[in-house]
Amino acid sequence: MNDWLHVLSEQECRWLLEQAHIGRVAVNVDGVPAIFPVNYGLLEGDVVFMTGEGTKLRAAVRNATVAFEIDGHDTRTHSGWSVVVVGATSELTSAQLQDAGRLRLEPWAGGDRDHVVRISPDSITGRRLERFPARPT
Amino acid sequence: MNDWLHVLSEQECRWLLEQAHIGRVAVNVDGVPAIFPVNYGLLEGDVVFMTGEGTKLRAAVRNATVAFEIDGHDTRTHSGWSVVVVGATSELTSAQLQDAGRLRLEPWAGGDRDHVVRISPDSITGRRLERFPARPT
Repeated sequence: MNDWLHVLSEQECRWLLEQAHIGRVAVNVDGVPAIFPVNYGLLEGDVVFMTGEGTKLRAAVRNATVAFEIDGHDTRTHSGWSVVVVGATSELTSAQLQDAGRLRLEPWAGGDRDHVVRISPDSITGRRLERFPARPT
Repeated sequence: MNDWLHVLSEQECRWLLEQAHIGRVAVNVDGVPAIFPVNYGLLEGDVVFMTGEGTKLRAAVRNATVAFEIDGHDTRTHSGWSVVVVGATSELTSAQLQDAGRLRLEPWAGGDRDHVVRISPDSITGRRLERFPARPT
């Protein structure tokens, strides 16, 4: 591991998750990786996002293990970071849905908005790159 | 499908792929989805990115089918877009590596820079959201 690559603490990862609102969900669809951008929020610290009825995303994430990613980068300083949450999905209960109603959640790709998916994290990991390496000469 | 969701043509997707330089690779690792940010370039229209020796990404993408995603969004207008390339990976030949040397490729997470991975696309798809829907009331 190079000295310009830093592993983020879970606390740092959770802070970054609080700042952003768009991420990507990676999930297997018939054994082939698929990836979907989502608007997300945090419910009791867990990532939650909405899926529209009949969408590919909704079908894919039902009772699935998914990876959820956010990242950011500064092209001027060539620095960047990423946070990845891996865990099983579940749909919210009615009571949880009421809590989720206070979040600014909207489905990225439309459809109705009754389906809120929660990721129960098995792992939360992150990395920060202080600067990208020089180009090979 | 809602009227504010537009399917992008392959030509539009390819144009967007030419503009960006950071994307995410989704791949299965022991049956579980994983997702990695990468710096990428285009070689003969195909997505290429570098992996460092000994990295999780390098191990995961060898002879694998992956999904590669880029996206962009405007929080002011609540509009966004995403492009996803799905295909099999291969390492570049020596001759292709020379061509890749002209690209501004750097590994996101370090390691050596001898391993350039190419995605041969089975599909290139994209969507644009003119605006996000209003919040439920």
